[in-house]
Amino acid sequence: MDELDIETVAEVDLDDPVLVEGLPGVGHVGKLAVDHLLEELEGESTLVRRVYSPEFPPQVTVENGVSELTCAELFAVSTADGRDLLLLTGDHQAQTNEGHYVLTSAFLDLAEEFGATEVYALGGVPTGELIDEYAVVGAVSDESLVDELEGAGVEFRENEPAGGIVGVSGLLLGLGERRGFEAACLMGETSGYLVDPKSARAVLEVLEEQLEIDLEYESLDERADEMEDVIGKIQEMEQQQQMDVPTDDDLRYIG
Amino acid sequence: MDELDIETVAEVDLDDPVLVEGLPGVGHVGKLAVDHLLEELEGESTLVRRVYSPEFPPQVTVENGVSELTCAELFAVSTADGRDLLLLTGDHQAQTNEGHYVLTSAFLDLAEEFGATEVYALGGVPTGELIDEYAVVGAVSDESLVDELEGAGVEFRENEPAGGIVGVSGLLLGLGERRGFEAACLMGETSGYLVDPKSARAVLEVLEEQLEIDLEYESLDERADEMEDVIGKIQEMEQQQQMDVPTDDDLRYIG
Amino acid sequence: MDELDIETVAEVDLDDPVLVEGLPGVGHVGKLAVDHLLEELEGESTLVRRVYSPEFPPQVTVENGVSELTCAELFAVSTADGRDLLLLTGDHQAQTNEGHYVLTSAFLDLAEEFGATEVYALGGVPTGELIDEYAVVGAVSDESLVDELEGAGVEFRENEPAGGIVGVSGLLLGLGERRGFEAACLMGETSGYLVDPKSARAVLEVLEEQLEIDLEYESLDERADEMEDVIGKIQEMEQQQQMDVPTDDDLRYIG
Amino acid sequence: MDELDIETVAEVDLDDPVLVEGLPGVGHVGKLAVDHLLEELEGESTLVRRVYSPEFPPQVTVENGVSELTCAELFAVSTADGRDLLLLTGDHQAQTNEGHYVLTSAFLDLAEEFGATEVYALGGVPTGELIDEYAVVGAVSDESLVDELEGAGVEFRENEPAGGIVGVSGLLLGLGERRGFEAACLMGETSGYLVDPKSARAVLEVLEEQLEIDLEYESLDERADEMEDVIGKIQEMEQQQQMDVPTDDDLRYIG
Repeated sequence: MDELDIETVAEVDLDDPVLVEGLPGVGHVGKLAVDHLLEELEGESTLVRRVYSPEFPPQVTVENGVSELTCAELFAVSTADGRDLLLLTGDHQAQTNEGHYVLTSAFLDLAEEFGATEVYALGGVPTGELIDEYAVVGAVSDESLVDELEGAGVEFRENEPAGGIVGVSGLLLGLGERRGFEAACLMGETSGYLVDPKSARAVLEVLEEQLEIDLEYESLDERADEMEDVIGKIQEMEQQQQMDVPTDDDLRYIG
Repeated sequence: MDELDIETVAEVDLDDPVLVEGLPGVGHVGKLAVDHLLEELEGESTLVRRVYSPEFPPQVTVENGVSELTCAELFAVSTADGRDLLLLTGDHQAQTNEGHYVLTSAFLDLAEEFGATEVYALGGVPTGELIDEYAVVGAVSDESLVDELEGAGVEFRENEPAGGIVGVSGLLLGLGERRGFEAACLMGETSGYLVDPKSARAVLEVLEEQLEIDLEYESLDERADEMEDVIGKIQEMEQQQQMDVPTDDDLRYIG
Repeated sequence: MDELDIETVAEVDLDDPVLVEGLPGVGHVGKLAVDHLLEELEGESTLVRRVYSPEFPPQVTVENGVSELTCAELFAVSTADGRDLLLLTGDHQAQTNEGHYVLTSAFLDLAEEFGATEVYALGGVPTGELIDEYAVVGAVSDESLVDELEGAGVEFRENEPAGGIVGVSGLLLGLGERRGFEAACLMGETSGYLVDPKSARAVLEVLEEQLEIDLEYESLDERADEMEDVIGKIQEMEQQQQMDVPTDDDLRYIG
Repeated sequence: MDELDIETVAEVDLDDPVLVEGLPGVGHVGKLAVDHLLEELEGESTLVRRVYSPEFPPQVTVENGVSELTCAELFAVSTADGRDLLLLTGDHQAQTNEGHYVLTSAFLDLAEEFGATEVYALGGVPTGELIDEYAVVGAVSDESLVDELEGAGVEFRENEPAGGIVGVSGLLLGLGERRGFEAACLMGETSGYLVDPKSARAVLEVLEEQLEIDLEYESLDERADEMEDVIGKIQEMEQQQQMDVPTDDDLRYIG
């Protein structure tokens, strides 16, 4: 059993593409964002690679009785106007510290293979409270990338995120920089308690400008409305119970 | 110390055999089923391989003072009427995530070596409550396998099992599909609290039809009766205590 | 960093030696026994190998300010009358499941290098209660070894030890058998709560007969007397508190 | 992904340098000490190597929006009067037992590459109570190193540290000795509850004598004063609460 087993599903020629990663994480912000991109760009995207690895959980998902082995999937997008894209998504993170290094290295190998030199890692940054204005916090592999992103509304803060960035998103910056990529992490503020489509939209609005693409948000907004209903009910319950803040138990990842 | 140490106990020529796996798991359904197959097919089965690996617990079992190193065992069965079989059993699962990948790959290597292209992974699916009618839930590596199994009474459900299938049974489907095997997982419904011979029988009745073999169930039914007595006593206790549902503590794996 | 780093401290020619292992475990029985053998055979024993490995804890012990890296030590004993011996001791077990396999393989390699074909793994078997008569329970890699050991007073029981034998002692039997060694595990009964020199003596008395050596027990008996004092005080406390059985908290490894 | 990825930042020729290690640990004593050395020797030190490894956490730190991949850093110091130095620091220890072996071996490789044959591992030894007189406890790879360090005020105690020395500091002695280094561990006494600049100063005062360097302590003393304020407030609170000893919860690593 090799550390990596990469399935070539299709070959697509891309012109200077940008890798955009959205694996599961805080508020599922990154995954929601990339899944929305895939939905919006459906006609223009092609599944090009599947990445299997014993670093993923030893597990298949089952839909209508048919199994699918845990993997990460890479889609190629060739758009008429905007930049070509490589979209990376999946249902799982690596299960060990070392696994994050192994998988991130594999993802960067694939980015290189398709000629990408830029990376956007998408995710959420937890604030611990419900959010009205969704800021997007940035981190970059090189200082030279700050100005342009600030122009697109991304906030760079002195000591945030305080604990650094852990997992594939962090390593795309760290290992990416070591290998000559220009990498940025866009983190939508999110409570950390709920699956957060609004935070995903905030992140995508930055990407729209950066990648010169136009997105509709209908399906994401619908999902956000559903979440609003959930939050509304929770707040009602709270008022009845005269509690001030939703606890972790009330709110943990209702999606 | 190599990752795998495969002992050749005997060589047997098989004609297009089917691999049937039954390692320990929920309700011990898979292991009970394969052990019953071995008991019923005793005169026709031959131990052909032992698989040792540091992925198993570092342990020997001791019977009458004689030790045996933890391993998985592969038996070849050449029946007069039905399909030839490869039966895989053992007392332990791998101890790490990666270990499940290592061992499943080894099992598929062996299946290939004996010319098998079909795999049945047997197990249980926990329902959380005691069961009257034992359904068998299916999952398959390829949609084309659904119809025939439905004909044999296997149920395919939209979102079950919800958490996917973990461990060797799941990977036999996932890795098996990657390597060109036709793989099905047959999961007997079971409370999840008790060793469940009735669930094993339900699974075996599907296999009988699929593999064109005839099984007696005397010994399995006896074991089921013993379990019924245990359940009866628990239910009596419950009624006395006016409890509605047996708790985990009452029922956990009494076998 | 290699998986193993074996230091050759001295070369000694031995005639058909027997490997005797006593690493830490239940009641420290095995380690007490081998350490006592080393004390008694001091003039005749030579440290021949140190086994270092990242499978051991990343740790040095410090005595009078001087550090020593965690390792296992192998001593060669050439006695006038009895069998030649290889005594294996150390302060630590491996830290992972796989580590037990790695280290046991290394120990068997060394046994082979010195021409040994027989192995005694020494240890304790927990009974859960204080013990008057110290039986020695046996397990062997091959049934042919039972009779002689029964003659020396070792008890072979149908289902004991119920959970099998875990760690290096178990694998010396399991991996040893795979490699053609005749291996026996001698387990002194012990409460499991206390370091138990009496159990170690019971094990050594079997070895005396098997290896044709004569041992004095003065120092081990002194240590046993100290433990008796501890037990006496605990029992006194118990009577005052009208408790029937010492709890784990009272007794856990007072040595 | 290799086990190690060593970045050559600069090449510097050193004359018989001494490796001084200060990674995070008890009371952050070692790290505070080496960071202070770097601050004091700023004009004379050059970053020469960065050590990246999947044994570190999969993480970047972020400062003002710019990410930096977790690593250990090695600085070369060429002083006018004293010994040449190699200063090793970083924000993280390895995350697994085996990782400590891997990283320590890499650090010793680098020390060898720069011609070092002596190593000082700096750290803290927890006493469990607040400290007035900061003793420095020593451990050495070879007895011959005791006398000179005792002359510099280091205390060597019969059974201390009782649990040995764990992690990189311990292995620099243990693996260092195996490879022919003269290695000493200097451990400042510290409560174990607080980041402890005073303990770091005690350790540095020993080093000053050993390495023939002169240090100022202004910035470290300022930090110590801040900690004194914290301790003062805690003791006040204690007196009000009539508690005798600060609990772990009050004091755990306030820095």
